[in-house]
Amino acid sequence: MSTVRDATYELLRRHGLTTIFGNPGSNELPFLAGMPEDFRYILGLHEGVVAGMADGYAQATRRPALVNLHAASGSGNAMGALTNSWYAHTPLVITAGQQVRSTIGQEVMLSNVDAVSLPRPLVKFSAEPASARDVVRTMGQAIHAAVLEPAGPVYVSIPYDDWAHETGPEDAHLGERTVETAGELSDGQLADLVAALDAAARPVLVLGPDVDSARGNDDAVRLAERLGAPVWVAPSASRCPFPTSHAAFRGVLPASVAGITGLLSGHDLILVVGAPVFRYHQYEPGEYLPGRHCPVADHLRPG
Amino acid sequence: MSTVRDATYELLRRHGLTTIFGNPGSNELPFLAGMPEDFRYILGLHEGVVAGMADGYAQATRRPALVNLHAASGSGNAMGALTNSWYAHTPLVITAGQQVRSTIGQEVMLSNVDAVSLPRPLVKFSAEPASARDVVRTMGQAIHAAVLEPAGPVYVSIPYDDWAHETGPEDAHLGERTVETAGELSDGQLADLVAALDAAARPVLVLGPDVDSARGNDDAVRLAERLGAPVWVAPSASRCPFPTSHAAFRGVLPASVAGITGLLSGHDLILVVGAPVFRYHQYEPGEYLPGRHCPVADHLRPG
Amino acid sequence: MSTVRDATYELLRRHGLTTIFGNPGSNELPFLAGMPEDFRYILGLHEGVVAGMADGYAQATRRPALVNLHAASGSGNAMGALTNSWYAHTPLVITAGQQVRSTIGQEVMLSNVDAVSLPRPLVKFSAEPASARDVVRTMGQAIHAAVLEPAGPVYVSIPYDDWAHETGPEDAHLGERTVETAGELSDGQLADLVAALDAAARPVLVLGPDVDSARGNDDAVRLAERLGAPVWVAPSASRCPFPTSHAAFRGVLPASVAGITGLLSGHDLILVVGAPVFRYHQYEPGEYLPGRHCPVADHLRPG
Amino acid sequence: MSTVRDATYELLRRHGLTTIFGNPGSNELPFLAGMPEDFRYILGLHEGVVAGMADGYAQATRRPALVNLHAASGSGNAMGALTNSWYAHTPLVITAGQQVRSTIGQEVMLSNVDAVSLPRPLVKFSAEPASARDVVRTMGQAIHAAVLEPAGPVYVSIPYDDWAHETGPEDAHLGERTVETAGELSDGQLADLVAALDAAARPVLVLGPDVDSARGNDDAVRLAERLGAPVWVAPSASRCPFPTSHAAFRGVLPASVAGITGLLSGHDLILVVGAPVFRYHQYEPGEYLPGRHCPVADHLRPG
Repeated sequence: MSTVRDATYELLRRHGLTTIFGNPGSNELPFLAGMPEDFRYILGLHEGVVAGMADGYAQATRRPALVNLHAASGSGNAMGALTNSWYAHTPLVITAGQQVRSTIGQEVMLSNVDAVSLPRPLVKFSAEPASARDVVRTMGQAIHAAVLEPAGPVYVSIPYDDWAHETGPEDAHLGERTVETAGELSDGQLADLVAALDAAARPVLVLGPDVDSARGNDDAVRLAERLGAPVWVAPSASRCPFPTSHAAFRGVLPASVAGITGLLSGHDLILVVGAPVFRYHQYEPGEYLPGRHCPVADHLRPG
Repeated sequence: MSTVRDATYELLRRHGLTTIFGNPGSNELPFLAGMPEDFRYILGLHEGVVAGMADGYAQATRRPALVNLHAASGSGNAMGALTNSWYAHTPLVITAGQQVRSTIGQEVMLSNVDAVSLPRPLVKFSAEPASARDVVRTMGQAIHAAVLEPAGPVYVSIPYDDWAHETGPEDAHLGERTVETAGELSDGQLADLVAALDAAARPVLVLGPDVDSARGNDDAVRLAERLGAPVWVAPSASRCPFPTSHAAFRGVLPASVAGITGLLSGHDLILVVGAPVFRYHQYEPGEYLPGRHCPVADHLRPG
Repeated sequence: MSTVRDATYELLRRHGLTTIFGNPGSNELPFLAGMPEDFRYILGLHEGVVAGMADGYAQATRRPALVNLHAASGSGNAMGALTNSWYAHTPLVITAGQQVRSTIGQEVMLSNVDAVSLPRPLVKFSAEPASARDVVRTMGQAIHAAVLEPAGPVYVSIPYDDWAHETGPEDAHLGERTVETAGELSDGQLADLVAALDAAARPVLVLGPDVDSARGNDDAVRLAERLGAPVWVAPSASRCPFPTSHAAFRGVLPASVAGITGLLSGHDLILVVGAPVFRYHQYEPGEYLPGRHCPVADHLRPG
Repeated sequence: MSTVRDATYELLRRHGLTTIFGNPGSNELPFLAGMPEDFRYILGLHEGVVAGMADGYAQATRRPALVNLHAASGSGNAMGALTNSWYAHTPLVITAGQQVRSTIGQEVMLSNVDAVSLPRPLVKFSAEPASARDVVRTMGQAIHAAVLEPAGPVYVSIPYDDWAHETGPEDAHLGERTVETAGELSDGQLADLVAALDAAARPVLVLGPDVDSARGNDDAVRLAERLGAPVWVAPSASRCPFPTSHAAFRGVLPASVAGITGLLSGHDLILVVGAPVFRYHQYEPGEYLPGRHCPVADHLRPG
């Protein structure tokens, strides 16, 4: 059985975040107790120094850096340094240890009440997962947000008792997925995409509202006809990306894991354009489509 | 076995909040499915009307009113009306149904992302419990905050899957406690306090930092000597309220449930002055002292 | 001619805030350039130390302490220490130097963009005056908020070019007024109030909505009859505190400075109960009533 | 003499925002009193309807739409509808009328206290200019933020007395500039850039820190040598984009309007890469370089 801590270390490793800059306290112990051998911890005795070291390391290596802070007091100590990281566009992934979930609202010692507001407006993304089951995904989103241009610091508050929780099927998917971003498809990205489409025996198109807002509707029809692929509209789409009378049109996907897996499980390639993958509504947990997708937020909520 | 839903209805009943004004959606169903017979639900088809009705009801009855809204969209619809409630000092206790905990961060349909920020700056208190185990206590704090002068609206976002959780020992205590607030002790409050002290065979004093900041140290010594009671300093006190060389001084209380119960369980009355009851640190769950206290935040965190 | 700087120093002097703890930068120069001889500046070379010294000084003297920080970077450096001040209920009045007003939005170097959010949730009150003309009043409100129980830190961001502005008539009033707060009137406060009413030849009552919400309507009638005083309802009241058919009733006050001065200028004592003094609406500047009132917010907006 | 109102209408006209959806109150009168003939105002009697119409109009026209709301109450009424606009990525430019600057802090009727927090987290950008002199630039930034992908709603609170202020030289520049954004330079943008460089007799390069973070340093040297252009480093750069021993290197630009105009005024084309244009520090107002630049924030501050 894997824990949130194991899955988080695996996620960090996949993103090359194996150097941790920090100044921990008691809230951070359950995370650090399991630190694998291939990680190293650079200790600083004041968080201003810790954040400064991490900023320089990220700038020098041109990669994101991981910062491990202690609750509100440690986070507060680092906030002067964050003014520099913000304007230098330095991708810092900051984690702050939180108290035991059930006790935060009591304002026990070292609880970080309203942790999400604390680092604002000096971070691009600030979150405290609402459940232990959402920690790994939140960390994935935070890393993504930090490096997305313009890069910058992000903040995740993680409760003490979350690290020992067992992971679910979502977390396995998170460890396997690859995310690339681009202002425009590069030649290499385009070639990869074409190759994947060429290799697919039973591709399917899922189109979302941004196809319509970008006036890509005619292109969508041409693509569907060229591929000979069926077309679904993404769950809960706010605009119509495809003519519903077209022979390739199959309908609107239901807004649940089980519902989508039931309808799309026969295909060997799913190309989603102009929509999140996927925006669910009903909570009907089930088997995810193998190796293909995981729940994501489709754009970055500020600060 | 009692659930969070049962305990919340019991808490509402104790505070006379048995009339609910609302416009619910799917997120609110697990709460409403178990609505007891002695509650009534006043339905409005737009949240501006719902909040307006509740405001008028609260003003007319001179009591707090309960408002039941749907996620971010329903809460947003009510926010114009909240400008009136804020300046009229109307004690509205607003609950907003949230999506399933593990899916909020994915921004599934009807999730209320960063729910705590949404109603600001038009509420006195805004919270989303970090755990199902903290829902009942959060509701208790919200009701208290709403009616504390100057009164005003408060907001609590409650995840879908919390209502069915089983309650813990904290929740039982919450259902039994009585909270009164006063700018100064009234004659009646004073008489009750004196009577309780007179009746106590083995009273104990717990003194906190506010005794020192209010220069009440000498009064504290006089009180301890008059009562012949031992004196403990509250956990993690930032100031010293009592001379540590005094014969009645017993030490500083440990900052855990189990630790405090171990030390204070022999007494039949605990008088805490100038401190929260209690501010814990270490998470060492245990038996609470019977019928006497529960974890609380000692002052209101704004908005 | 007096400047905002002069009036601010006068306000600080009246509240005994003549010891300043700080670590200034360029934004703070126009304030410090005019520091009077009776003020002293305790310099610390890191804001964590500055805030810590101020906290200890305030706790030891049992009075508020003034902290002078530099923009977002200096404020950020102090935020770790604020976690202690928050829970110790230490009244710290923190000022942060801001850039020139017209350039803040450009995010010039050392601008403190969204300064009001920066110190949250670790302060009771956070503000940046929307105009140089509101700096002195904002500082007065901040001092009041810091010491109002439960006491705590407050934050005011002040633009560089505000200090040299000339003051208006509001600021003179601010320098003269006295504010007292109490959970319940003390014997001394009650005696002062009775003496003032006895000495008044032409008193007038202004009643606000809180008279009604506290069910004080009958008391209000008795008071008006005992005094033989005319009764006005406060501007824009949300509840009716006095029977409008009573012989003493004069109407609802208009919501402007000039309007109120016109109606109340003949009286030698104005007693306002259950309302702000005064909540205006229309901007009709004019002569304020001499020595009696100034515009105030009637309750504290959180954080 | 031009006013902030005139310059704002001119800015709106340049961006095609001549249809206004709104439900105004008294705070909005000074803006609407001067509405030019080529603008039209679509009135709705509830802000939920107003925001809904504007959202549909923006989606149908695939252009941003202007929404004119009234203070906190009107803005609050629209916030339910904003949940849809946020997830539909609809570019809504929302203006909210604010009270007279000097009276906002008093919480006069219809003041929108802490206006910047009110619409969060449902907008991409939220601001209240700190000065009448910054209104037009703020509106320009808001429009840019609304349409920048992923598009979405933005919010600007504008005080009553700002509209009649005279504009300064910055505002004239704002009316003339053109901003384009792209994930990657399109063929047309590239051709325009090459043509401008070919046509320039005395071009100059200004390089910023993002040249270094993108590892573009060698490309920068090649470009400077190809053009035979002198190279300056942008003011207050956090990273070094160009070898300081290179013959083309001229130094680091000073961080003031007057300083930059003094050094760059001989050139007929200024190409700035990897930096804001320009990030000032010292407030030394002066002549801007003709037709070439204006102060900007280099990336979007969230929410």
